[in-house]
Amino acid sequence: MATNGVQQPLLNGGGHSADAIQQKPRNAVKRFRRCRTAPASDPASEEPRPPPRPDNAGATASAKIVFESGRPSFRLVGLLLLAYLLAGTAAFYLAMDHLSGHRSGSRALDALYFCVVTMTTVGYGDLVPSSDAAKLLASAFSFAGVAVVGTFLSKSADYLVEKQESLLFRAVHASAAHPARARLRATEAANRTRYKLYATAVLLAASVASGTLFLWKAEGMRPVDAFYCVCATVTTLGYGDRSFTSLAGRAFAVVWITVSTVVVALFFLYVAELYAERRQRQLARWVLTRRTTSADLEAADMDGDQRVGAAEFVLFKLKELGKISQEDISEFLEEFDRLDVDHSGTLSPSDLAAAQPTA
Amino acid sequence: MATNGVQQPLLNGGGHSADAIQQKPRNAVKRFRRCRTAPASDPASEEPRPPPRPDNAGATASAKIVFESGRPSFRLVGLLLLAYLLAGTAAFYLAMDHLSGHRSGSRALDALYFCVVTMTTVGYGDLVPSSDAAKLLASAFSFAGVAVVGTFLSKSADYLVEKQESLLFRAVHASAAHPARARLRATEAANRTRYKLYATAVLLAASVASGTLFLWKAEGMRPVDAFYCVCATVTTLGYGDRSFTSLAGRAFAVVWITVSTVVVALFFLYVAELYAERRQRQLARWVLTRRTTSADLEAADMDGDQRVGAAEFVLFKLKELGKISQEDISEFLEEFDRLDVDHSGTLSPSDLAAAQPTA
Repeated sequence: MATNGVQQPLLNGGGHSADAIQQKPRNAVKRFRRCRTAPASDPASEEPRPPPRPDNAGATASAKIVFESGRPSFRLVGLLLLAYLLAGTAAFYLAMDHLSGHRSGSRALDALYFCVVTMTTVGYGDLVPSSDAAKLLASAFSFAGVAVVGTFLSKSADYLVEKQESLLFRAVHASAAHPARARLRATEAANRTRYKLYATAVLLAASVASGTLFLWKAEGMRPVDAFYCVCATVTTLGYGDRSFTSLAGRAFAVVWITVSTVVVALFFLYVAELYAERRQRQLARWVLTRRTTSADLEAADMDGDQRVGAAEFVLFKLKELGKISQEDISEFLEEFDRLDVDHSGTLSPSDLAAAQPTA
Repeated sequence: MATNGVQQPLLNGGGHSADAIQQKPRNAVKRFRRCRTAPASDPASEEPRPPPRPDNAGATASAKIVFESGRPSFRLVGLLLLAYLLAGTAAFYLAMDHLSGHRSGSRALDALYFCVVTMTTVGYGDLVPSSDAAKLLASAFSFAGVAVVGTFLSKSADYLVEKQESLLFRAVHASAAHPARARLRATEAANRTRYKLYATAVLLAASVASGTLFLWKAEGMRPVDAFYCVCATVTTLGYGDRSFTSLAGRAFAVVWITVSTVVVALFFLYVAELYAERRQRQLARWVLTRRTTSADLEAADMDGDQRVGAAEFVLFKLKELGKISQEDISEFLEEFDRLDVDHSGTLSPSDLAAAQPTA
C-alpha cells in the first residue's frame, strides 16, 4: 500500500515502527472485508497458541519437513504389514488342525500362505477354516487385512507422490532463475503420471508372465489354466478351482501374490490419477483463458483498497479453480492481521518485531 | 502499488487508461521476479488461446460449473456398471454350459450371480468356468470388473466430495457477512468426514447384520457359518466353502454383495480421509503458529516491491503448507501480467478493456 511513493527497504532492522505508522496515509487503515472477527494485534487471542518452533528458516526448511514427514509413517505401515503377517502366520500355525483342505507338507508355509491369501483378499478356498473358532479368527483377519493393505496402498501412493513433489520442489527452486527450464519442468511434471503408469504396466505384464510361467512349468498346469489362475489371483478374485498346491508353489505364491495384487491396484490407481490430472488441467485452462470482468476484480479485491494486485488475482483464480477455499485463506488472513501491528496493510520487519516479542 | 495515495474507484468504466498510465510513479513499473517469460501485454502469445466463453459472471457461476461437472460422468460410470452387468450376464448365460458347479435352477440368475461375484472380486468358486473359452472370458471380465468397480468407487467418492463442497461453497457465500457463522461452518466442515464415517459404519453394520440374518434364516446356515460367510464376502475374500446356493439366496446375493462390498470400501476410504485431514490440520496449525521472520517476508514479496500485502502473505503460507505449488501460481501470474496493460502492478477495468478487446 501507498506511502507516497517512498519505499522502505524491507530488511533494515526493526527500529522504525513509529515512523512507519506516521507515514501511512489515512486511507490505508482499511481493514480486511472478510475477517472482521480477526483478533487484530491482540496477542491474547481466544485460542491458546502453541509455542513457536525454533526452526524458522523459511519455506525451504518447512517444505522439507512437509515432504519428509511421510517417510516415517510409510515405514510404520511396512511394519504394520509385517506384524499382520507374523501374527497371522503364528495364529494359523497354531490353528492349522482347525483348517481343512490341501496341505503342502510344511505347516509354517501353509499358515503363511493362508495368511497372505486372506490379507490380499484372494481367498482361494483351497485351505479353509473348519472349526467355529478358526472361522471367527479368519473373519477378524479378513477385516484387518483390508485395513492393512488399504493403508499400505494409500501410503505407497502418498510416498511416491511426496517423493516426486520433493524432486519437483528442488527443480523449481534450482530453476527459479531459468524460467525456460522451469517451463520444461512443468511439462515433465505433467508427463510424470504417464511414466508412472507405463512403469506399472510393465510390472503388471511381468507379474502376469512370471505367474503364468511358474504355474505352467512348476505346478504343471495347462497354459490356459495357468493364465486363468493368474488373472483370478492378481485381481483378488481367487475362484480357487486352480491354486498353488506344491511346497515350491506356495513359497512362490506368498511373495508373488503380495507383489502382483499391489501392482494391479497401483496400475488402476495411476489410470485414475492420469484421468483426474487431465480433467484438472482442462479446468485450469478454462479458468485461465476465461474473460476477466469488472465483477471479478471487485470479488478479487481482498483488502478492499479498490486495487487488485498480482497476489490477490492469483488467490482469486485459485479459489475459482477450487484448489483452495475461503476457509484455507481466512486463518492466514487472521494471522496477517495479528502480525500487521501498525495496520498499514503490509508487513514490515518492525511489525514482526512488535507482534512476536522475542522470549 | 502506490499512485501517490490517490485511489481510483474500481468500477467507473474503462475510459481512463491514459490517465492511469500517466499517474503511476516510476518505481511501480517493476515487473514480477518470477515470470520474466510472461507474454506481457502481447495478445498474440505463443499458445493459441481458445475463444473466451460467453459466461463470465464471475466465481459463483464458474464454481457451479466446477462442482456440477462431476454429475454427468458419475451417471456415465453408473451406466458403465450397468453395461458390464448386462454384457457379463448375457455372456455367461450363453456360456453356462461351460460353467461347472452348483446351479440354483435359473440359468439367467446364475449368470448374473457369477457376473456379480466376478465383478466385485468375491470369487467364491461355487460356479467356475470349465472350458478354455469360458476361462478366458472370465479372465477378461475379471480385469474389466476391477476397472469398473474402481472407477465407480472413485466417482462415488468424488461425487460425495463435490456435493459437500458445493454445500460448503453456498454456506460460505451466504455467511460472508456473518463471520461468526462462517467460523461455525468451518468447524462443521471439519466434522463432516467424521459424520460420513459414522454413517458408513452404520451401513456396514446393517450389511453384516442383514447378510448374516439372511444366510442363517433363508439359507439355513449355522449363525457362525453365516457370519463367517458374510465377513469373507464383504471383504471380497470369497473363500467359497460357504456361499449362496438357493434361488432366493442368489437373488438376494446379487444386490447384497454389490452394496456391501461398496460400503466396506467406502468405510475404509473415509477412515483414510479422516486420518489425512487430521494430519493436514496439524500441519496447517504448525504453519500458522510458526514465527514469521524477515527472511519469510523477503520470500513472500512476490512482486518485489519490498512490501508484503495480505494476499502475498496468504500465498506464501499456502505454498509452505504444500497446498499450492509455484507452478499453480506462475500460470496465473503470466495471465495477470498479460492483463496489466499499463504495467501499474494492479488491475483496473481499463486494463481489462485494453487487454480483452470485445469482439
